Amino acid sequence: MRIALGLEYDGSAFCGWQSQASRCSVQDHLEASLSKLAAERIGVTAAGRTDAGVHASAQVVHFDTEAERPESAWVRGTNSNVHPGVRVLWSHVTTPEFHARYSALSRTYRYVLINHAVEPAIFRGRVGWCHRPLELAPMEESLRCLVGEHDFSAFRDAECQAKSPVRNLMEARVERARDTFVFTFRANAFLHHMVRNIVGAAVYVGSGRKPVAWLAELLASGNRSLAAPTFPPDGLYLTGVEYDPAFRLPAFRHAPWPALG
Amino acid sequence: MRIALGLEYDGSAFCGWQSQASRCSVQDHLEASLSKLAAERIGVTAAGRTDAGVHASAQVVHFDTEAERPESAWVRGTNSNVHPGVRVLWSHVTTPEFHARYSALSRTYRYVLINHAVEPAIFRGRVGWCHRPLELAPMEESLRCLVGEHDFSAFRDAECQAKSPVRNLMEARVERARDTFVFTFRANAFLHHMVRNIVGAAVYVGSGRKPVAWLAELLASGNRSLAAPTFPPDGLYLTGVEYDPAFRLPAFRHAPWPALG
Repeated sequence: MRIALGLEYDGSAFCGWQSQASRCSVQDHLEASLSKLAAERIGVTAAGRTDAGVHASAQVVHFDTEAERPESAWVRGTNSNVHPGVRVLWSHVTTPEFHARYSALSRTYRYVLINHAVEPAIFRGRVGWCHRPLELAPMEESLRCLVGEHDFSAFRDAECQAKSPVRNLMEARVERARDTFVFTFRANAFLHHMVRNIVGAAVYVGSGRKPVAWLAELLASGNRSLAAPTFPPDGLYLTGVEYDPAFRLPAFRHAPWPALG
Repeated sequence: MRIALGLEYDGSAFCGWQSQASRCSVQDHLEASLSKLAAERIGVTAAGRTDAGVHASAQVVHFDTEAERPESAWVRGTNSNVHPGVRVLWSHVTTPEFHARYSALSRTYRYVLINHAVEPAIFRGRVGWCHRPLELAPMEESLRCLVGEHDFSAFRDAECQAKSPVRNLMEARVERARDTFVFTFRANAFLHHMVRNIVGAAVYVGSGRKPVAWLAELLASGNRSLAAPTFPPDGLYLTGVEYDPAFRLPAFRHAPWPALG
């Protein structure tokens, strides 16, 4: 039987999504908890393999099991013994055709950035920070050139293992809510550090350090070494994974932070 | 010279505002940092002595010093060596007539409550949680009776040391933003656990466990033992302290969470 789960997690409590020898990842914690509940070894596959420090308000995973449990047990049972930094929000018995990673049509990431002279205290680890005053309009304009199918080599980490640097970016925008900027990116898939590298470059434009056309130049150059430093993971959230509605996956809850959905 | 400071802190990182023998409080950390900067022993007085786990996005303190420092040094210097869970947002050279606690005309606290079957992961320690479905209208209505000058003994902790249980509550309201409820309370001053006890009682009304008139009955009874359990500190924020504008204190920044101001 194939089960899909909807997850929320605090990335600052883990060494990333993907299983590590030290068992410090979200995947390690979740698999240990599910295996206990199922009384058999469970391996999970996620829609997006988030890096250390990156949060998820709407991660989707699937796993196969022989264990017969009421659907609600996968939520309550797991939450009763897993690390409090990860919560299962829903479970859904699905079909073998559903694959959390390969069935995903797109992923949405948001980057929340506080723009103030002093770094955040209450939300440290949960928002990015830029002390230089930023302007919205140049950042908005500079992001527009990224929408569409492009070779994103200029925004790709040197350690990225993807076969192709080509991605289809369906959405790239930024909004301002007083002292906070929220970037939204939706793509068929993302390269390693792609969002954090794009945010870093956009911030150079927003602070006037680079002109609006700079992102287009970077994109055309395909040269990562010309771009701005990678932004830290603190403000990055996986906020959505889109699938064919025929899979009828349950909806996620709304975050207390409206910007996160 | 008397200096006023504006502070933000993550209550989950400290054992409350007030100095403790174990030096784990916000006051202990701040005084140690300021004393180092001033090269003399500094003692600070706060507008609101928040409990362990309670956050502040807009705490105000003052202290007296012989040390001559540029105004900005009290911000940057302190932030460079104090615990990252507390940040000085502004400093202001004030007059001896200004007293962070006694000059305050009112304090504003907000309680952020996530209403969902599953407890929060990303914002654990930063929001309260109620799994029973809550209705806004009965809570809104029940809070109305609290506005004005009343004996708040029914919402006062047994350990409260205030001489009088009478407080002037100027504002008591609740708003809903999808799965999140935000309570706002403004009063000349608050009794110990007063906000958390009122929220606990309002939630009993919102979940249908008690009728709308229950808060008025509790208030009239003056009997704490009849009320609901104290809500946890996680969702509680000191979001404002109001002074005579003649003191010309700097404004606070806007939180990334619009509900927090």
